[in-house]
Amino acid sequence: MKRQRQLNVKNYRSGGFIGKYQRLVKDTVIPYQYDVLCDKAEGAEKSHVIRNFENAAKALRKEDAGDGFYGMVFQDSDAAKWIEAAAYSLACFSDGELEKTVDTLIEKIAAAQDDDGYLNTRFTVTDRDKRWTNLLEGHELYCAGHMAEAACAYYEVTGKRRLLDVMLKNVEHIYRHFITEGREGYPGHPEIELALLKLYRTSGDERCLELARHFIDRRGVDAEFFKKERERRNWTVWGNNGEDGDYQQSGRPVREQSDATGHAVRAVYLYTGMADLAGETGDVELHDACVRLWDSMTKRRMYITGGIGSTVRGEAFSVDYDLPSDTAYAESCASVGLIFFASRMLEYEVKGEYADVMERAFYNTVLAGMQLDGKRFFYVNPLEVDPGISGISPDKRHDLPQRPGWYACACCPPNIARLISSFGRYAYGESGDTAYCHMYADGEVTFDNGVRLICRTGYPYSFEIKYTVVKGGRLAIRIAGWSESCRLEKNGAELSEKLSDGYVYLGVNDGDELVLTLDGTPKLYYPSVKIPSLTGMAAVCRGPLVYCFEGVDNGGDVRSLSIDADGDITVQGEDGSLGGAVKLAVKAIRTEDGDELYSSRAPQRNGCAAVAVPYYTWGNRGENQMRVWLPLKI
Amino acid sequence: MKRQRQLNVKNYRSGGFIGKYQRLVKDTVIPYQYDVLCDKAEGAEKSHVIRNFENAAKALRKEDAGDGFYGMVFQDSDAAKWIEAAAYSLACFSDGELEKTVDTLIEKIAAAQDDDGYLNTRFTVTDRDKRWTNLLEGHELYCAGHMAEAACAYYEVTGKRRLLDVMLKNVEHIYRHFITEGREGYPGHPEIELALLKLYRTSGDERCLELARHFIDRRGVDAEFFKKERERRNWTVWGNNGEDGDYQQSGRPVREQSDATGHAVRAVYLYTGMADLAGETGDVELHDACVRLWDSMTKRRMYITGGIGSTVRGEAFSVDYDLPSDTAYAESCASVGLIFFASRMLEYEVKGEYADVMERAFYNTVLAGMQLDGKRFFYVNPLEVDPGISGISPDKRHDLPQRPGWYACACCPPNIARLISSFGRYAYGESGDTAYCHMYADGEVTFDNGVRLICRTGYPYSFEIKYTVVKGGRLAIRIAGWSESCRLEKNGAELSEKLSDGYVYLGVNDGDELVLTLDGTPKLYYPSVKIPSLTGMAAVCRGPLVYCFEGVDNGGDVRSLSIDADGDITVQGEDGSLGGAVKLAVKAIRTEDGDELYSSRAPQRNGCAAVAVPYYTWGNRGENQMRVWLPLKI
Repeated sequence: MKRQRQLNVKNYRSGGFIGKYQRLVKDTVIPYQYDVLCDKAEGAEKSHVIRNFENAAKALRKEDAGDGFYGMVFQDSDAAKWIEAAAYSLACFSDGELEKTVDTLIEKIAAAQDDDGYLNTRFTVTDRDKRWTNLLEGHELYCAGHMAEAACAYYEVTGKRRLLDVMLKNVEHIYRHFITEGREGYPGHPEIELALLKLYRTSGDERCLELARHFIDRRGVDAEFFKKERERRNWTVWGNNGEDGDYQQSGRPVREQSDATGHAVRAVYLYTGMADLAGETGDVELHDACVRLWDSMTKRRMYITGGIGSTVRGEAFSVDYDLPSDTAYAESCASVGLIFFASRMLEYEVKGEYADVMERAFYNTVLAGMQLDGKRFFYVNPLEVDPGISGISPDKRHDLPQRPGWYACACCPPNIARLISSFGRYAYGESGDTAYCHMYADGEVTFDNGVRLICRTGYPYSFEIKYTVVKGGRLAIRIAGWSESCRLEKNGAELSEKLSDGYVYLGVNDGDELVLTLDGTPKLYYPSVKIPSLTGMAAVCRGPLVYCFEGVDNGGDVRSLSIDADGDITVQGEDGSLGGAVKLAVKAIRTEDGDELYSSRAPQRNGCAAVAVPYYTWGNRGENQMRVWLPLKI
Repeated sequence: MKRQRQLNVKNYRSGGFIGKYQRLVKDTVIPYQYDVLCDKAEGAEKSHVIRNFENAAKALRKEDAGDGFYGMVFQDSDAAKWIEAAAYSLACFSDGELEKTVDTLIEKIAAAQDDDGYLNTRFTVTDRDKRWTNLLEGHELYCAGHMAEAACAYYEVTGKRRLLDVMLKNVEHIYRHFITEGREGYPGHPEIELALLKLYRTSGDERCLELARHFIDRRGVDAEFFKKERERRNWTVWGNNGEDGDYQQSGRPVREQSDATGHAVRAVYLYTGMADLAGETGDVELHDACVRLWDSMTKRRMYITGGIGSTVRGEAFSVDYDLPSDTAYAESCASVGLIFFASRMLEYEVKGEYADVMERAFYNTVLAGMQLDGKRFFYVNPLEVDPGISGISPDKRHDLPQRPGWYACACCPPNIARLISSFGRYAYGESGDTAYCHMYADGEVTFDNGVRLICRTGYPYSFEIKYTVVKGGRLAIRIAGWSESCRLEKNGAELSEKLSDGYVYLGVNDGDELVLTLDGTPKLYYPSVKIPSLTGMAAVCRGPLVYCFEGVDNGGDVRSLSIDADGDITVQGEDGSLGGAVKLAVKAIRTEDGDELYSSRAPQRNGCAAVAVPYYTWGNRGENQMRVWLPLKI
């Protein structure tokens, strides 16, 4: 059987909750981010991204490179991610103006490409002799990867080859350097591996596959490669001495790795490439490594919100069960990458747990990364903030109680934009004659195998999902792991199909109406007792949404609240202030004490109704206390 | 009325619990630490302390300085603190051998003093031209302070002036540099202020008082002093750029400070000097600042164990109520310094809260700093450890589950030794005709005002304290703040004296027998709801002792335990394995869950009896889980 593959992004036309988000990305996020790239956005930190390409082109023409290069060593990738997001958005909404803007930017990028195919403004504007000498920190392969992803996306959506050809020429250059000329090395920050696999499928160029396999296979074979590279050169970007192989997942060959370690974004980008390569080539050993890493990450090192990488030190994974709420890092980009990884694992093997994690990460950490108005963003996604401590305490400076605007290191905002705009490829998939519904997403879907569906649902706030079959075939519908029960009807009659690894498989004919009803009862969630920071606590979830408690709904203080395990959780009406989010009322207890730091006098405790809101909506109503986990009165 | 003053250290001959600890310091800690100073202790990190003095003497004689200087810039202070501890120990136990060893060491120190009075091996062996150019990091005044304290202690106990004269000559040098020659500056690490006040009282030399006042008064007047100093020189010890004035309490004049900030040891050493100067000179404004800083520290920034300085970043105070258990720093030395500060505050104004904090810090953090056998030490005193996470997680590397041996930075072990050996001066005090009993300490006490007492008690494990009055007068006995009730009898008849700021004042005659009975019922303590990391939790205390739960007593796992608020806490027998410590049995609930990271299935909960041991005894029975605070089932 052909493996299940992501949907072509053009084949989903969204509605409902996802449609609103895709519209927000089109109307607000993409235009704003373009203004940032052009240094026209008010209040944003200097970006200089487009100027860097213009200046690189001048340098190539031996002209004065004007104000030179500015920004992070990976500044080019902001343009790449923006193009990719714009491409996906064009798949959702045609927009001649936006397409023209992208075309113009692509010409600037093309003009910045060296004759030999090299493309990176940082080492073109200056330091041409430093090309490829600092794979550990230089991010040249990382930037190439993002630009290759952008090229594939734009070609996939518009059929325009300009950027694709630029990147194929760039790959030729990279291939020559690492394969033909045999220079040892692989990226300090993985990304190009997954991009090369996309480029391989888009272009059919076998060198892309070979290069992806090369980078994956060589990684960690010499555990000291980066240390030796550091010793060979006399410059550094951030002073990484290459000693800690786990930080960039190069401490041992990838097939021997079992623990998700190091910088979380690097990890999930690498694992995504590994999982994709395993699927593409049927490499069982590589897939087994992916399964181990998946288990390490999702069964021992993941927040309930789908956040990963719990420590600010290195934006990295910590050890098993070290998942503090208040010092969490849980970078938005890491959860975007977790979705990539989950989707690739799902391609290899259709199992509900992959889609469950994908959904958990999307509806909680990824969406929380963006303000509801699309104008401000979180890098870091704590599960608790306390104004006066969070963002101020030396150990919690990174955990901000409010989303800032654009960052100097602008990786997360465009990452969120490209994911939302391409939601369809994660929500739906196909293999042979089977059409897969991995996530519930209102809209119209046309599968390449001919199946056509119209999905209507108010998900994630309604738990009834209706599929109208426009063109029949074989369907596989995921039953969310969080739903304790469900009902599936075809044309009014209940079906009794068995679950197979979290999916119901069934044949459908043109005109069939399917109604899936999931159990949307709000529930308490209990953390493993192995998570020290959460003992005695519980969280409230409904469907895929993790809820949290904010001061603004709870008399200003949520630190004094405990959940009453004996109480019901009731669904309140939609709240206009939170873009249609549904609030929950939770039976709770409020503790009131005196002013002593520690006291042997038992505090007063009074019953109350606490109000919870979806975690992704937090921080949209001013600075206030927020908690996902509350003590549980049993 | 003359202010209440600490007891002369020679006037207390201990017994009971304190006596055992003083004996341990004499028999084990002092000999071991001397071996370390001589680089003869097996397994200890290289110290080189005595060799540094020998090499400095050679350098002064223009001879080859052998293997030069080795160690931290404050390496000399290890010798000073050891001499001070040895001096106090000699007050408890005469020991001709030890006295000879100290005398020999003092000769080596004297030989390392420059003709101009300068004394510091780091800048004598080499870099003579760098003297006094880096007050921020150089620790010259810090080392001088510790050596002055040692000189006072050794003179006080033995009457020998050799080191005292060396240090008076050193003070002359410092006075000349900072006052006569008018060079601006004060120490980056306070310590000399409190030492100069001791030296003033010991020697009567007014320059000591003037110099102490100078350093205190100048501090922070130019908030950029250290930054400018940094800019003037082309070398640094640790790269402190002097920008963060709060780190060394120099961001504003000390009289204007209100929040306990920065490096905790620096803070408490400074505040001790300030409080002592305020008392010595009747400086009300300075005392008011001390009261504000005291309140900031003890009412908003202190662990229940009397630990202060909650963050590893800078070994520093964090913001109010930021008191995490698992990432705590709570350096042993900081609690030693807190006792110094408390004792000085008590000298200015006799209030039970100062003695309460002194006792809390001593019986919990200070004693926890040392293994029961006196051979290993904690710098960092977390309130929770989880083997597999603590000491390994990037955010918790400093929180070790076991006491290591001697450190390269060896400040804590001798600090604990000197405090234990001089316990009498903190436990007892006097003013005019009144004799003060601040802490309950078995032994014989002779006050300079003529009062003589014999105290007999099994405190902190018995709550009956008997005083036999050998020579009568006026007594002031503190009634511990933690005791909900108490009974005081004189010659068998209950007294009804009123409490005045936590003390009972009464006249006693020769031969009177007083019996104080405190309430030793074990109790739950509740944290303020303002401490985010402790919501929903409780701790168990008995008398001055904070208890904790260790895996070894609780089936290996304490993360799954909750305290049952409805249950009694019962006193168990003494445990031979913990040096006479008394265990408690606490009604508890154990949570047993499946293997899921997060689950909507409520876990099993079963009643059980949890065993608690005094916090100071933790980590003496191998690596295991430890928690002070447990979730509370209400």
